[in-house]
Amino acid sequence: MIDVEIIAIGNEILAGDVLDTNTNWLCKRITALGGSVAHASIVRDDLDDIARELRESIARHPALIITTGGLGPTADDMTLAAVAKAVGAPLTLNSEALDMVRQKYEELARAGYVADAHITPAREKTARLPKGAIPLGNPVGAAPGVSLTAGDVRIVSLPGVPAELKGIFESSLKPILKEIFGKGGYHQVLLVLDCNDESILAPVLEATARDHPRVYVKSRARRFGPEYKIRLTLSATGENEEEAVRAVDDALKSLRDYLNSAGISIESVEEG
Amino acid sequence: MIDVEIIAIGNEILAGDVLDTNTNWLCKRITALGGSVAHASIVRDDLDDIARELRESIARHPALIITTGGLGPTADDMTLAAVAKAVGAPLTLNSEALDMVRQKYEELARAGYVADAHITPAREKTARLPKGAIPLGNPVGAAPGVSLTAGDVRIVSLPGVPAELKGIFESSLKPILKEIFGKGGYHQVLLVLDCNDESILAPVLEATARDHPRVYVKSRARRFGPEYKIRLTLSATGENEEEAVRAVDDALKSLRDYLNSAGISIESVEEG
Repeated sequence: MIDVEIIAIGNEILAGDVLDTNTNWLCKRITALGGSVAHASIVRDDLDDIARELRESIARHPALIITTGGLGPTADDMTLAAVAKAVGAPLTLNSEALDMVRQKYEELARAGYVADAHITPAREKTARLPKGAIPLGNPVGAAPGVSLTAGDVRIVSLPGVPAELKGIFESSLKPILKEIFGKGGYHQVLLVLDCNDESILAPVLEATARDHPRVYVKSRARRFGPEYKIRLTLSATGENEEEAVRAVDDALKSLRDYLNSAGISIESVEEG
Repeated sequence: MIDVEIIAIGNEILAGDVLDTNTNWLCKRITALGGSVAHASIVRDDLDDIARELRESIARHPALIITTGGLGPTADDMTLAAVAKAVGAPLTLNSEALDMVRQKYEELARAGYVADAHITPAREKTARLPKGAIPLGNPVGAAPGVSLTAGDVRIVSLPGVPAELKGIFESSLKPILKEIFGKGGYHQVLLVLDCNDESILAPVLEATARDHPRVYVKSRARRFGPEYKIRLTLSATGENEEEAVRAVDDALKSLRDYLNSAGISIESVEEG
């Protein structure tokens, strides 16, 4: 399984002003493409904090690190400076990125969204990339995404504005991810059980997990109450999707037997 | 300012199945109480991953680390074992916690939410705490929260079920936080500007931030468009609230002057 880590950057997230939905969106898309998010974090708009987080992530050897936020024209946008610091590459003006930025401000000026298309120092800043990085076209906003390969890890920086992040992901990042993840497969089934007590279920889940170490057996705790039904997921990764499906199906057979013996019935099973 | 770090635990979050709203809720409450969340992360239900994350967090010396999730009766709930591993304290059956668990299952059995109140090994597991820890009563669910002081840091473990987390926070954690944060104050104002281009605003924000280094000046990027108005926050922390308010007010005066010179007007200013 190919590990990915996500670093979200922004004081407004840590102050609780903004709920970070980007990480959840990325986790869903990466899982669906056959990757696995191993770690996610939120750090302040602080050069040293971001660079330290990147270095700690690099030390865990994921194949890919995605940062979100901090790519804009203002001084509190310091993600690229932090990437440069973490990998020891200087920031340099990237001519391809500058062309993207210039073209975008011309479009925005024609649409009347900005006053003019002049490349001010603040706008130029968004085209200063760590040396060796390539820009990823932003179909929605002005600042390009950035991809940099440093040793065994690829670091991809996306904007924090959700529409821009999604735009770059779909247009530029998906092909890169498919290449990184290869044919890796993932399969998950969701069960609803006629049982309202996780503590009774615990030995059943342990027996299933012991028999099928490759399959992740996870119960979803919810608040106790009259309508409470335990939800359960079985999931597995594999070299390809068929392998993942087979592993989950085998575990589901065992689980049915154990549940039967414990007098617990399955109300529903669905994929995903 | 007193730093807090948050560690959310759960494969279902990293797989994108569940959007973690607990971290945002905690960030809001901690900020409002005068603390500051310096770092947040999401890790897998994996003993080594959780313990490593705890050790990395401890090394950054926050006053408080809050973990969420992984306190239940099933084998994939391993937060307390990881806390025990990270701080080098063995897990031991805590009699006060066991009383809480027993009493809760008696209530749940009387309400008909569980079949009986027998203390099975799975239920007993939720009362096995790192040595020296104290249980925090859970007014909503069965597993108690846990508070442990290790050297200079306090580690508080809360359940992942949002209603349980909020219940323990309000009943047991708030008084602890007020004591930790003391009279520390925080103030923030939110401005909407008659300006749709962050790159034009950049020099104005830089000048304001330079004149008022204690105040955090942050523009909130959004997608370009016809209705686009830049939102801006000025925030500061201080020894007490008055000090924080004064710092923000002073910065707001400077900002008004700089915006005036740049021909940008303020559409609205509000607190919070």
